Amino acid sequence: MSGILRLGRLELRVLDLEESVKYYTDVIGLEVTGREENRVYLKAWDEYDHHSIVLQKADTAGMDHMAFKVKDIYELEKLESKIEQFGCQLSRVSKGTRLAEGEAIRFQIPTGHYMELYTDIEQVGTKTGSLNPHPWPDGLRGIAPHRLDHALLTGDDLETATRFFTEVLGFKQTERIVTVDGEVLVGSFLSATNKAHDLAFVKGPDGKFHHAGFYVDNWYDVLKAADILTKNNVQTEITPTRHGITRGLTIYFFDPSGNRNEAYTSGYMSYADFPTITWTEDKIATGIFYHRRELVESFNKALT
Amino acid sequence: MSGILRLGRLELRVLDLEESVKYYTDVIGLEVTGREENRVYLKAWDEYDHHSIVLQKADTAGMDHMAFKVKDIYELEKLESKIEQFGCQLSRVSKGTRLAEGEAIRFQIPTGHYMELYTDIEQVGTKTGSLNPHPWPDGLRGIAPHRLDHALLTGDDLETATRFFTEVLGFKQTERIVTVDGEVLVGSFLSATNKAHDLAFVKGPDGKFHHAGFYVDNWYDVLKAADILTKNNVQTEITPTRHGITRGLTIYFFDPSGNRNEAYTSGYMSYADFPTITWTEDKIATGIFYHRRELVESFNKALT
Amino acid sequence: MSGILRLGRLELRVLDLEESVKYYTDVIGLEVTGREENRVYLKAWDEYDHHSIVLQKADTAGMDHMAFKVKDIYELEKLESKIEQFGCQLSRVSKGTRLAEGEAIRFQIPTGHYMELYTDIEQVGTKTGSLNPHPWPDGLRGIAPHRLDHALLTGDDLETATRFFTEVLGFKQTERIVTVDGEVLVGSFLSATNKAHDLAFVKGPDGKFHHAGFYVDNWYDVLKAADILTKNNVQTEITPTRHGITRGLTIYFFDPSGNRNEAYTSGYMSYADFPTITWTEDKIATGIFYHRRELVESFNKALT
Amino acid sequence: MSGILRLGRLELRVLDLEESVKYYTDVIGLEVTGREENRVYLKAWDEYDHHSIVLQKADTAGMDHMAFKVKDIYELEKLESKIEQFGCQLSRVSKGTRLAEGEAIRFQIPTGHYMELYTDIEQVGTKTGSLNPHPWPDGLRGIAPHRLDHALLTGDDLETATRFFTEVLGFKQTERIVTVDGEVLVGSFLSATNKAHDLAFVKGPDGKFHHAGFYVDNWYDVLKAADILTKNNVQTEITPTRHGITRGLTIYFFDPSGNRNEAYTSGYMSYADFPTITWTEDKIATGIFYHRRELVESFNKALT
Ligand SMILES: [Ca+2]
Ligand SMILES: [Ca+2]
Ligand SMILES: [Ca+2]
Ligand SMILES: [Ca+2]
Ligand SMILES: [Fe+3]
Ligand SMILES: [Fe+3]
Ligand SMILES: [Fe+3]
Ligand SMILES: [Fe+3]
Repeated sequence: MSGILRLGRLELRVLDLEESVKYYTDVIGLEVTGREENRVYLKAWDEYDHHSIVLQKADTAGMDHMAFKVKDIYELEKLESKIEQFGCQLSRVSKGTRLAEGEAIRFQIPTGHYMELYTDIEQVGTKTGSLNPHPWPDGLRGIAPHRLDHALLTGDDLETATRFFTEVLGFKQTERIVTVDGEVLVGSFLSATNKAHDLAFVKGPDGKFHHAGFYVDNWYDVLKAADILTKNNVQTEITPTRHGITRGLTIYFFDPSGNRNEAYTSGYMSYADFPTITWTEDKIATGIFYHRRELVESFNKALT
Repeated sequence: MSGILRLGRLELRVLDLEESVKYYTDVIGLEVTGREENRVYLKAWDEYDHHSIVLQKADTAGMDHMAFKVKDIYELEKLESKIEQFGCQLSRVSKGTRLAEGEAIRFQIPTGHYMELYTDIEQVGTKTGSLNPHPWPDGLRGIAPHRLDHALLTGDDLETATRFFTEVLGFKQTERIVTVDGEVLVGSFLSATNKAHDLAFVKGPDGKFHHAGFYVDNWYDVLKAADILTKNNVQTEITPTRHGITRGLTIYFFDPSGNRNEAYTSGYMSYADFPTITWTEDKIATGIFYHRRELVESFNKALT
Repeated sequence: MSGILRLGRLELRVLDLEESVKYYTDVIGLEVTGREENRVYLKAWDEYDHHSIVLQKADTAGMDHMAFKVKDIYELEKLESKIEQFGCQLSRVSKGTRLAEGEAIRFQIPTGHYMELYTDIEQVGTKTGSLNPHPWPDGLRGIAPHRLDHALLTGDDLETATRFFTEVLGFKQTERIVTVDGEVLVGSFLSATNKAHDLAFVKGPDGKFHHAGFYVDNWYDVLKAADILTKNNVQTEITPTRHGITRGLTIYFFDPSGNRNEAYTSGYMSYADFPTITWTEDKIATGIFYHRRELVESFNKALT
Repeated sequence: MSGILRLGRLELRVLDLEESVKYYTDVIGLEVTGREENRVYLKAWDEYDHHSIVLQKADTAGMDHMAFKVKDIYELEKLESKIEQFGCQLSRVSKGTRLAEGEAIRFQIPTGHYMELYTDIEQVGTKTGSLNPHPWPDGLRGIAPHRLDHALLTGDDLETATRFFTEVLGFKQTERIVTVDGEVLVGSFLSATNKAHDLAFVKGPDGKFHHAGFYVDNWYDVLKAADILTKNNVQTEITPTRHGITRGLTIYFFDPSGNRNEAYTSGYMSYADFPTITWTEDKIATGIFYHRRELVESFNKALT
């Protein structure tokens, strides 16, 4: 109910830019909408804005920053003031720093990740258009998600991170994982929308990136995604399954730099009066991988 | 981005209360959460509030009123003041008028339908609970939708109705159908959430009810719904298909009093910056029934 | 349990050969495997033989003939002798009459349709190959069915036709539609395999073609087929639904010459001891279109 | 093309009869059709014969025998003679040995498993009946498969086993796994029908049982199966995925005695002219678990 619209973009660090572009276009099925020397901009077919993923050539993999789009400049200013009150130091990203983007504000969240808020980005429209549109366009390739959906990060102090996102940025907490004694928050799922989550944290090292979730339409499209990953010899961490948390249907895999991706669908709708669901840590594996009921070893280790 | 959370409930007029309860429990698969002499209260398994459907014994079918839940009393008062400024006459529904509900405000929208706004209703929780929940409960019956999703009404002046919902109540218009000359709005799809619609209007007589949409999970569940309707000999208007508008997957059918119901899934997500999609009236049939590409005769006629 | 393997090919008469090839490749998604002056040969991606559909340029639409592949020359000779005993006049189609085919025998079945039996056809393999194959190939277009599945024809004397296929050719009757008094057979579903049907008849004029059924994988692929038909402006007779008969999931539509096509999936398995299911004629509409429960007018009329 | 219709029944040894009955009825969703002191007989809702699974109280888990139904006594006698010629010693199981069954012949196949052939068993019909049937019955519980579909066994000499099933019993080999040098057969998939397999072998100890496959309708039903297994705390070996071999969609899990079960769907159709697909052993893991591309450790070890 804050002015935050959605996770508008992720800038990911990748080791080999061309190999990464090939992967994000052929396997994920995004389209390139812009190029600079060290950055490539991409969007999913069903997104309106100029890009949702920015690939940045870098020496280490990971998330450069995540950026949430805000409704308008008025909401952005209100958020800016609340963020400063919380004690975060803000900097300003000037228009033209990145392609097709206007000004943004940038700051570090309590877990050390860089985050931006912005309202100004060129809108290029979806592939189906806005006049008598067909439900999907011809010529889709790869997994072809509808959109970038959410991100999962790790951090040490999830209580503070949750407080920042709920009290300052107006997210609601849809689900939380707590130690059995109820003392420590080890997972926190946060929604700025009616989705089950737009952002989530699991306990781990500060500043690390766990995965970017792309939204596909249904369980058959998760199967199609899984088939495509094998056909393209992409490293897959978890084969098609359900999350207990969010009830979503999912598959986890890795981009060529080791950044984890997810094809995700079918989480529940949450409204602002949604009562937070609690998972106790003894059930965490069921919460994460509902069918497997145990974590895979890499889940907590493969972070970028 | 207003404080409106969702279409919280519909009170439907039905001719035979017991026959209707049997239909809404056995075929739709809602559960009864309360009874009064002339009203029965029901909810879907995945809804938190005490009820979303109220069946009212009456001499004619139709919608007594629709009610949207508002985030809190502060947002409710802001909306109340804007509604009065628009020129609507407000009345107050006192706590205890209906079971498990607190106070509400009631008014007529420009199309003559009665609408209520409220924030206070008993929350009874979903069937799966909020502690280490399974994704779905045992013992489901019938179509078993997740929730009441949206309503479609008819009215004569859709420009004014749209202005009321967007300017006063803070909905956005996700899609619109206009005459080919662009002069007259003949369909208007409105969202207070990230859903493709929470409420819609098609041009027709003021004050009439077209359908209540219930959300099911996927296209196989639309098939299951269709099978259940035939097994229960329920009158079906449109067999499984896609709406061009919202891209949703759907089936239309009628309750024993002739109120149209829908099992619906998979419409797109809309954010507050969603650019309104336009359908020209020559494509209206494709917009409504994407595969059939012509309306069924009853679509505009079977209104209650 | 006879030596008949399957409906191996249909030769369809089409009015405009190039327009038809475009439709069968772009919309249905078959691939062209051979061309002659007045014939084009096509196969589905998951078929091994050189072709399953032959399009023949002609002045009227319809089925030139249907051909069933027989296991070997020994079985073919046994069938040949039984067909002659039944009183059918046989002719021989010599090798080279059509591309990639060996010799065949040709005869008229009791309903006046031409039928061929053959065992010799060039095998070209599927698109996924037979060594460590992926489950589906890249580059599929259109509806992209796995295979030609079955045909439905009309005829006047279905008792005799059924006797011919069961007693002479070794099919079993999986389902039958009879008048309410049980006197007349008005529908007959026949299987030479473990499928619910390979061939079917409904009562109507002798010698006419009702439809060719192509097999798709699942209900979401029926939806995809329906979407593709609208995107390509193809005339659709029945939108996604279930047949009561065979339980199959289906959509009916027409090729540019008016020959009806079907995308079909999910009928039951039948074994040789399958007890024939009976539909009484008062339930015929539910048997044909399980959700609609009434026939569309064109069902009995649009014959080629 | 032999007279063999299908894998008609499996008799499984279980340690605790009542616990096993509870599992096979509540979780798998079979129905009990008969009981004796040490045996319980069960069938799936869509099977016609009296039973397809017999649970036998025993001290060790495993398969007592598998039995294939033969078309008629004439075919049975032909098979009997060929089996004896192959050198197997036959015994006769007399009518009344087990409930609702007529006489059977029993013998050991080259891998040491006991097998029976029979033609006489009481036919009780499906739950939907054979007169104007609905596509599925009310009151289904659990995974609710259509039928017992196939079995997978282990054995040492798969060349001989394959020869027995193809040359003596008339199966075709649809797929085979060979060592990279092509010298040794380490997997053999055999079909007596148009299914991708009715019986399969992987190299391992003689006489052991790997799994019984139950057929469900589609990929969403595999998901439902997986959800049900977690809800019932059933040990699951592989979560929803695809087999490269057969292309089937699958989940593996264990009954309370440790006998592996599978919910399986969507393998391809095979006809008698189906060219055997070859997998080289270096790709065996992709052939078995197409998405995971490596075996789970228990795959070769959890045998009963
Ligand atoms: Ca802390
Ligand atoms: Ca007007
Ligand atoms: Ca007759
Ligand atoms: Ca050997
Ligand atoms: Fe995720
Ligand atoms: Fe609707
Ligand atoms: Fe058909
Ligand atoms: Fe299997």
